[in-house]
Amino acid sequence: MKLTIERTALLRSLTHVQNIVERRTTIPILSNVKLEAAEGQLGLTATDLDITLIAQEPAEIERPGTTTVSAHTLFDVVRKLPDGSRLVLTQQPGASELTLEAGRSVFNLPSLAADEFPATAPEQLEVSFVIPPKDLAKLIDKTRFAISTEETRYYLNGVHLHATKGGAESVLRGVATDGHRLARVEVALPEGGGEMPAIIVPRKTVGELRKLLEDAGEEVAVSVSPSRIQFGCGRAILVSRLIDGTFPDYERVIPSGNERIVGLASKPFAEAVDRVATISTEKARAVKLAFEQGRITVSAVSAEAGRAVEELDADYPGEQLEIGFNARYILDMMAQIDGPEVRLEMANAAAPTLVRDPADSSVLYVLMPMRV
Amino acid sequence: MKLTIERTALLRSLTHVQNIVERRTTIPILSNVKLEAAEGQLGLTATDLDITLIAQEPAEIERPGTTTVSAHTLFDVVRKLPDGSRLVLTQQPGASELTLEAGRSVFNLPSLAADEFPATAPEQLEVSFVIPPKDLAKLIDKTRFAISTEETRYYLNGVHLHATKGGAESVLRGVATDGHRLARVEVALPEGGGEMPAIIVPRKTVGELRKLLEDAGEEVAVSVSPSRIQFGCGRAILVSRLIDGTFPDYERVIPSGNERIVGLASKPFAEAVDRVATISTEKARAVKLAFEQGRITVSAVSAEAGRAVEELDADYPGEQLEIGFNARYILDMMAQIDGPEVRLEMANAAAPTLVRDPADSSVLYVLMPMRV
Repeated sequence: MKLTIERTALLRSLTHVQNIVERRTTIPILSNVKLEAAEGQLGLTATDLDITLIAQEPAEIERPGTTTVSAHTLFDVVRKLPDGSRLVLTQQPGASELTLEAGRSVFNLPSLAADEFPATAPEQLEVSFVIPPKDLAKLIDKTRFAISTEETRYYLNGVHLHATKGGAESVLRGVATDGHRLARVEVALPEGGGEMPAIIVPRKTVGELRKLLEDAGEEVAVSVSPSRIQFGCGRAILVSRLIDGTFPDYERVIPSGNERIVGLASKPFAEAVDRVATISTEKARAVKLAFEQGRITVSAVSAEAGRAVEELDADYPGEQLEIGFNARYILDMMAQIDGPEVRLEMANAAAPTLVRDPADSSVLYVLMPMRV
Repeated sequence: MKLTIERTALLRSLTHVQNIVERRTTIPILSNVKLEAAEGQLGLTATDLDITLIAQEPAEIERPGTTTVSAHTLFDVVRKLPDGSRLVLTQQPGASELTLEAGRSVFNLPSLAADEFPATAPEQLEVSFVIPPKDLAKLIDKTRFAISTEETRYYLNGVHLHATKGGAESVLRGVATDGHRLARVEVALPEGGGEMPAIIVPRKTVGELRKLLEDAGEEVAVSVSPSRIQFGCGRAILVSRLIDGTFPDYERVIPSGNERIVGLASKPFAEAVDRVATISTEKARAVKLAFEQGRITVSAVSAEAGRAVEELDADYPGEQLEIGFNARYILDMMAQIDGPEVRLEMANAAAPTLVRDPADSSVLYVLMPMRV
């Protein structure tokens, strides 16, 4: 194998690829990135056995070939080389090291044969469609904070995606919940997405996909089966296993007919909750919202840190109500409310509260109250 | 106690003061900041028993008084209040809480009586002088990276300051060493500083002082005794115990007459060492420098990560020499070489190497070689 590649190009793809590689792994070759030189392209592949990322960069190929070297070492070396460098990568047939040359720098990196490399090759799966990157970004951003981190509830450790009706429209819906809060968002169903199975995309895949979307260009090619999903984003293809489980029937926890409805200015509300929560103990992080006509009082009490009370104007016509929430949950959700106002639809202090962004009817949140 | 203060003013001083307060302390009142309202000023004091920081901010005092409240809670609350707020602080006589009001926000913070507060009051010590903040900053920046972190060598856990002769000039000299490297820097001796005892300023004091220097104005008032030092920086006074120990006779480890002298371009040298060190193992971080006429080769080898070699032009007229260093030590030092060139004065692969910045004769470094 021998090729010449621009540092900028190699770095761009290595940045994504090395993210997939786990820092600690018991299988040595999983620390490596596979390099594949052929037909004017250098292919880079990394995997953690669940996720595989494949990227292609233009290169001048003098002698085709494949090898694997430490992804993090190669990334660090390339990152530290001067901007504008041209790198020559050479592996002699049968040699156990890759040589990287750039100007007066020479690096010899130990290599392992590529035929041991366990990466999954991308393939055409059952359902395929294209989707604008901004729609995928929205599905991720508005839901990922609510993904459960409890390993025993593995079927909640990702974003649930499925095709459904949102009113009269066909939509692709994303849902995440940890049992204390739920986030649901919809985007237009892409053409050909109607046959898509209901799936759960794991947290790590969601995170890596989100990073790829920044460079994804005009559209992302999605291909999906009940056990696998594949995203083609610009120069990169991300292949991931799906979570093998059934997402709970989340519609049942979305309340309907909550009659105590309040409109609040988003930013002052989030800031008040953030300040008041300074007082609540690290663990519980509970804040109390007390509603009365035209006004909301946000408060917190802790044995060690004292008491805090803030008043805000609120568009609340109903009868008095006191309800407690985890401040962290309110703040995570408010960070995703883009509009100037937020609407809370409450039943009582023990039942789930529905939260909407009046400026965007495609998102919806549910918060379970805490006793305060 | 009752007073009104601008949020900006309170935040400015609290930012410095709360830094002193240790996150975990077994003595409750040490978590607190002392507030002292009198004569148009709010005084803020925090201490960890070794260091005390006292700051003054203008305030409208309606009723003088003193109290103490959690420094970190007060800081977090004030930080989160909107810019431009005016804060009213009230403590009723005999009450066990301080009330902070800002607009429609009310915070009640538990307080402890100020008479239990163990802070050291500033006083006039034996030797006093004023010094430009930039000189103190230089004494700190050029030396602190070499401070030892080994607790058993407590007399190396700070910057050694003493008045001496640097050639024909009277200078204030700062020295730090961890036994593997040494940093020495000199600034003009301030008027009245000649009688200053030789002292060791602890690492934490050095760090807190450095932060205060950003807002210190034209000059810093220093007052020092063999056991204590005091810095008056703008609105703040920092009082610190000194390390009760004897700094070793460092002059003995500064070599003289090293005859193999090389001049190198600073930036390319630092970058080459940084790249090559990517290969060396985390722990040893050894790089080898091989000098021959007109050229230096920087290299590293590791069983796992491979080999790296870089060549640089060097102004080296002497005979061949190979010498190894800890890459971290070279990089820490190079970060403080401001000039375009660095000069290494070597004897052999086992003896200390002297490093100079030809653009600044007031700094000098010593590096112990490693066997490679």
